[in-house]
Amino acid sequence: MNGEEIKLTLKKYNLQSWSKQKYIDPIPVGKASGIYFWDYEGNRYSDMSSQLVNLNLGYGNKEIEDAIKVQMEKFCFIGPSYGAESRAKLAKKIIDLMPDNMGKVFFTNAGAEANENAIKIARMYTGKFKIFSRYRSYHGSSFGSGNLTGEPRRFALEPGIPGFVKFFDPYVYREAIVFQSEEEAAKYYLTKLEEQIQYEGPQSIAAIVLETITGSNGVIIPPKGYLPGVRALCDQYNILMICDEVMTGWCRTGKMFGFEHFDVKPDIVTFAKGVTCGYIPLGGVAVSSKIAEYFDDHLLSCGLTYSGHPLACAAGVACVEYYEKHNIADQVSEMGKVLGEILEDLKEKHPCVGDARYIGLFSAVELVKDKATKEPIVPYGKDPDGIMGKILGKLKERRFMTYTHENMILIAPPLIITEKQLREEMVKLDEVLSVVDREFI
Amino acid sequence: MNGEEIKLTLKKYNLQSWSKQKYIDPIPVGKASGIYFWDYEGNRYSDMSSQLVNLNLGYGNKEIEDAIKVQMEKFCFIGPSYGAESRAKLAKKIIDLMPDNMGKVFFTNAGAEANENAIKIARMYTGKFKIFSRYRSYHGSSFGSGNLTGEPRRFALEPGIPGFVKFFDPYVYREAIVFQSEEEAAKYYLTKLEEQIQYEGPQSIAAIVLETITGSNGVIIPPKGYLPGVRALCDQYNILMICDEVMTGWCRTGKMFGFEHFDVKPDIVTFAKGVTCGYIPLGGVAVSSKIAEYFDDHLLSCGLTYSGHPLACAAGVACVEYYEKHNIADQVSEMGKVLGEILEDLKEKHPCVGDARYIGLFSAVELVKDKATKEPIVPYGKDPDGIMGKILGKLKERRFMTYTHENMILIAPPLIITEKQLREEMVKLDEVLSVVDREFI
Ligand SMILES: Cc1ncc(COP(=O)(O)O)c(C=O)c1O
Ligand SMILES: Cc1ncc(COP(=O)(O)O)c(C=O)c1O
Repeated sequence: MNGEEIKLTLKKYNLQSWSKQKYIDPIPVGKASGIYFWDYEGNRYSDMSSQLVNLNLGYGNKEIEDAIKVQMEKFCFIGPSYGAESRAKLAKKIIDLMPDNMGKVFFTNAGAEANENAIKIARMYTGKFKIFSRYRSYHGSSFGSGNLTGEPRRFALEPGIPGFVKFFDPYVYREAIVFQSEEEAAKYYLTKLEEQIQYEGPQSIAAIVLETITGSNGVIIPPKGYLPGVRALCDQYNILMICDEVMTGWCRTGKMFGFEHFDVKPDIVTFAKGVTCGYIPLGGVAVSSKIAEYFDDHLLSCGLTYSGHPLACAAGVACVEYYEKHNIADQVSEMGKVLGEILEDLKEKHPCVGDARYIGLFSAVELVKDKATKEPIVPYGKDPDGIMGKILGKLKERRFMTYTHENMILIAPPLIITEKQLREEMVKLDEVLSVVDREFI
Repeated sequence: MNGEEIKLTLKKYNLQSWSKQKYIDPIPVGKASGIYFWDYEGNRYSDMSSQLVNLNLGYGNKEIEDAIKVQMEKFCFIGPSYGAESRAKLAKKIIDLMPDNMGKVFFTNAGAEANENAIKIARMYTGKFKIFSRYRSYHGSSFGSGNLTGEPRRFALEPGIPGFVKFFDPYVYREAIVFQSEEEAAKYYLTKLEEQIQYEGPQSIAAIVLETITGSNGVIIPPKGYLPGVRALCDQYNILMICDEVMTGWCRTGKMFGFEHFDVKPDIVTFAKGVTCGYIPLGGVAVSSKIAEYFDDHLLSCGLTYSGHPLACAAGVACVEYYEKHNIADQVSEMGKVLGEILEDLKEKHPCVGDARYIGLFSAVELVKDKATKEPIVPYGKDPDGIMGKILGKLKERRFMTYTHENMILIAPPLIITEKQLREEMVKLDEVLSVVDREFI
């Protein structure tokens, strides 16, 4: 097929995620390498969101591809109850990288299923049924993970599952109160959370689920003391702490896992995306040794055909080894400093930039009509004039590809991006923000 | 790693599906080809269940592996909103193979997610929220598909999602009534179903979900007239008919899809397993043109990172082309006759065989203490003396690998099995059934 045929065939036969189908316009991709991909007319695009923040090592990583080929020589598939070397290796590797309280891994196909199984495990282990999660969050779109999700994408799943309770993220930039310090902010959010725990009844709360750093909903970095405080509340009330590391895991933030920045040990960690960079679908749940032991003689009532898929696990082993061998986490810390400086400059320069939040190569630029009032460039949940779409269009004209959420632009390039490439791309964002200053606010 | 290391590493670091972890004992698999796989000591095993009824074309299919390699040269991953040729090709191919009312495909990672999205789509399209499904069914283990599931594996998901309603399968062999004909049976089940529809209120019922032929719960083949009757009820009460073809699809029963045996056109079809034979995880939902059109200007509130994964779709194209080019459906019909004759002989010969149900290469042998009373060899939901495990053990001694459910042994070999291989393997089952006759009833 040529590019046009691919596009037309998709428009005719394929349903695209999160879209009104009449408006979809898929760019046909012919090849890809590093941080770039090309359409069928030879135009080169820069991937400044690592697709859906999953392609951490970019396109065409030889090590991962070779590992897939080697596993393919043995077999592509064997069921979850048989022994595959790649599955064994990856399970061990992941536990070795986790804090010392962690014990075993259950493999799934992706992030949503990882969260599904995490909450099933939490309910089985605790015998309790309520699950806390946050409003500004995305945990997946299947019924379980979609009921965890706090933003509007969960509405298609209502009436919801009994026992799923929401609380608010520590979104300091837009809080109704102005805080004097991070510690004060943390204290406020923890007090509110404890109050809600007490009113819901700790005796029925199985787990608190949180994105270690809220991702799609705007890279909300918790204030100092917040996560250790959540950990303490979990300990006090006998609640499991589940960190969703689907986006923040695998070096994205400059550490192997996001929670390493905050000195906490979760009871359960869910992961996907960066574990294989999406070369083959894979996700999973890591659980503490204590939880793992419980299932020694209690039935683990979880299962899926492709659990621990041998080809996916082979890709995972190669991918995780790559992070380690090439010190990707350290590299991300370095490059994150460059990104942070650029973002601070943009915030200072552009009236339309209300806030820029960043950690490692994970960042969001929040657009406002007015820096002082913080009025968002589009009202919450709406974009009547299609402004965010137009801004994406301006970026796309410059072949700078990413996605937006509400009034925010996400910037999360592949972790292998060089300083030269990063600076080159951010100039394009700078240009577009100048257009926004002039035309949209 | 050697075989022993693989086993120990998995026991130490990996959580295995549907198990008490203390008892797992994964056979380490070193290589596989056709219907066979080998452990690290060189022992050869016959795969008589196609793993989890997904490995339809067996191990080491060159066409599928080559297609994966070719796609890998271009790119392994691109997000759902871009155009990948393999995704376009597979979407078109699937719709071309479906009845003429079908319009578009939404891709997922596996079967559970396919059902999750099918019920989301049904709710969005109809604006109604109740979902009917059957007790003797397995549709997956995530919250949505697990609430569809009727057998005990859903208990870990309770308290359940509001609006999920169960009815009984047409399980004629164990019905409280004896029917004079298939038509009479169909009429009985349809009358009961209509009664339940009326008492639940058709104005709030979005969909009826059924495995076209109940799989894991014992290959329950619907009596003549049943499925057209369900279709008629759906039309009468404005309810969508969703066929779960995760197991029955892709030539397993001697037709491309199971519903082709019964002359019905579903509104939504879910699939997974045989679409790639599990070489790469993939599943999906096909919807009618009418439903597809609805989403032209209504938001499709479904999405997942790996939707339409390029490498998985490339495997899918090769796999589906293989079914077509090699007339696998016809081959299965032929081989199914041989299997049917063997099963009829076993039923006649062995006092322990109460019933044998089969269609194509999809079959179950139901074990009883007494053919006349039909008392199952193990009571429902229990196996206090571990009898089914012992029977599996006897089969395993003969390197005949499959799985059981309640009092049933599933036989569903790869569709490429030859008559010689099939006869060779079924001799082993015959031997073991003689042991069962002597020792277990
Ligand atoms: C934090 C988080 N959790 C879970 C998911 C769901 O993962 P998947 O799309 O692989 O099901 C996502 C996807 O964007 C995510 O960002
Ligand atoms: C009929 C049916 N539907 C759905 C599923 C779930 O598929 P998966 O395990 O790929 O999630 C299965 C799995 O066995 C199945 O047999």
